[in-house]
Amino acid sequence: MELNKDNYCVIMAGGIGSRFWPMSRTDRPKQFLDVMGFGESLLQMTYHRFEKICPKDNIYIVTSELYRNIVIEQLDGIREDRILCEPARRNTAPCITYANFRILKDNPNANIIVAPSDHLILKEDIFLSIIQKALKVAKENDILITLGIRPSYPNTGYGYIQFDNTDGLKSDIEFKKVKLFTEKPNKEMAQMFIDSGDFLWNAGIFVWSLHSINKALNDLLPEIYNAFSQGKDLMGTDKEIEFINETYTSCQSISIDYGVMEKASNVYVMPSDFGWSDVGTWKALYEVRGKDDNGNSTIGKNVMTYSSTNNVITIDDNKLAVIQGLDDYIVVDSKNVLLICKKDEEQRVKQFLTDVEVQKGKEYL
Amino acid sequence: MELNKDNYCVIMAGGIGSRFWPMSRTDRPKQFLDVMGFGESLLQMTYHRFEKICPKDNIYIVTSELYRNIVIEQLDGIREDRILCEPARRNTAPCITYANFRILKDNPNANIIVAPSDHLILKEDIFLSIIQKALKVAKENDILITLGIRPSYPNTGYGYIQFDNTDGLKSDIEFKKVKLFTEKPNKEMAQMFIDSGDFLWNAGIFVWSLHSINKALNDLLPEIYNAFSQGKDLMGTDKEIEFINETYTSCQSISIDYGVMEKASNVYVMPSDFGWSDVGTWKALYEVRGKDDNGNSTIGKNVMTYSSTNNVITIDDNKLAVIQGLDDYIVVDSKNVLLICKKDEEQRVKQFLTDVEVQKGKEYL
Repeated sequence: MELNKDNYCVIMAGGIGSRFWPMSRTDRPKQFLDVMGFGESLLQMTYHRFEKICPKDNIYIVTSELYRNIVIEQLDGIREDRILCEPARRNTAPCITYANFRILKDNPNANIIVAPSDHLILKEDIFLSIIQKALKVAKENDILITLGIRPSYPNTGYGYIQFDNTDGLKSDIEFKKVKLFTEKPNKEMAQMFIDSGDFLWNAGIFVWSLHSINKALNDLLPEIYNAFSQGKDLMGTDKEIEFINETYTSCQSISIDYGVMEKASNVYVMPSDFGWSDVGTWKALYEVRGKDDNGNSTIGKNVMTYSSTNNVITIDDNKLAVIQGLDDYIVVDSKNVLLICKKDEEQRVKQFLTDVEVQKGKEYL
Repeated sequence: MELNKDNYCVIMAGGIGSRFWPMSRTDRPKQFLDVMGFGESLLQMTYHRFEKICPKDNIYIVTSELYRNIVIEQLDGIREDRILCEPARRNTAPCITYANFRILKDNPNANIIVAPSDHLILKEDIFLSIIQKALKVAKENDILITLGIRPSYPNTGYGYIQFDNTDGLKSDIEFKKVKLFTEKPNKEMAQMFIDSGDFLWNAGIFVWSLHSINKALNDLLPEIYNAFSQGKDLMGTDKEIEFINETYTSCQSISIDYGVMEKASNVYVMPSDFGWSDVGTWKALYEVRGKDDNGNSTIGKNVMTYSSTNNVITIDDNKLAVIQGLDDYIVVDSKNVLLICKKDEEQRVKQFLTDVEVQKGKEYL
């Protein structure tokens, strides 16, 4: 099957994955790791997934200069000019705007998928057919599409999207009008969301035409839009990097969700279920990874467990771990760091990181 | 103070310390490790302790050929011919007999202390004054002296010595006649021992004249005695090693406790208290090591604990460990092995070792 030359993809790969420390490290964060033990990093899985829909040269990776070489190493044969390097971290709106102007130079008729590099999608066939549908309606309508996941339990770590079940796109009723984006709810609120039936998990995967997203950016984030617009003729030239380095650093740091999606009136969501997880925490990773009969999820060639249950264990292959009498813990032995932490206390990992930086230095981050 | 030229010491350093795996490894067992974090190995502490009583050249180390180089490295300036290498493990009776014949060649009037290399003695002054007394009575009497520790609690991991409080040496009433050696008791039995007041822990530290121990060996273990006796003229010559290699391997494997002390009629014990521990298990080590306010005993330059109590933690200095929510565990990260085990389950370490050897290979032992 020939791939549609107007299909484009922007994969955001600039995150630092600090919640996965010490497996995720400053010099090689989560998206570059095989956190599932599948033999591919999350970025590689993401890239290969979109290769089935977009011509290879239409896939852009936005990342940090720090990670350019890892991207080249992991994505065999990627054109180096498809790797866009952010000179500073400014959240997703500037990142997407930059990619838009690069794509504009290449193809003003582009229809674009924007996706994180570090999420997991288990039901790829369903996902790809949803994406195909979304690309089609995005091409035919001036709308902004976000994918919403039917929630299976009251997760308090995700943002939620409320949709209007009675108001869908005429051309495809599966795409529902978005009423509200919400921040991470508390437990009671999350349960109410689930019970209501009209709330979805916000997967942070967007589909739109280049025309529609640029129009929305121009309307809702004009400063950012104009800043990049001034350099549109420099895109793809020798002067691009210099321009970006200047423009980017002076940009407001703001997410596309907050800056555009929550404010725009033409946002639609397609409720779906394609085995998605943001694998955002050790516990989330535990949920999606395979487990042995004792409920232990183990990565590492040499892990021996005794009277141990429901742990998530990640050990470097050159190391042997013997673990006895542990229930419901995270155990990570990665290079120069060992972490042992109760699974229910995983939110403390960020605090540990801060303490480590202050007390022990950057070599352990 | 000039040291008595008849004072000799035999330090037994051939053990493999498997209960301290993975800190203790086949190629560097417990006696060569700084398990206390004092900056010296147990062997070094033992050696330096006896240097205060015996001329340096009168201190012999019996060990395995495997560990000869570690002994040389750790005991600065030791004469290489003071390191006696066992060609095979045959327990303590052959080891002591070998040393006796080496010392006999040097000084038939020797009075000898025999001590393990891997025990801890915290009250060194008291210990040394007891040893001085014991050397004196051993010189003047044809007796075999063992040091007995006044028990502070019903330990089930030690052997016990029952003594006769009414029957002591005429020349020094502190030395009591031994009635019985016992194996490790169960909990109830150990409590009975304590309550009786006439049981002591068997520390495995002996004092005797060369004359008395050789007479006892000749009486009670004549095969072993005669085997070594045949080579007495070869001791200290080029032919010693060849002779020992042959003799040793064909020797019965038997302990001095079982072969001599339990059978001899001239055994005396001096009840004492010099802060002794055989540091035989992780739990025993935990008891004697320093602890922080949370009861954690930690060795390692980079260990950070959160909500963790009563653990014994040993981490290589080049590694950072962050440990949260752990109570009453052993955590050891040593070279290519990580061990996490409940302190109360420490007896399982031997089983782990067997499993590791079978399933993973000798590189982790």
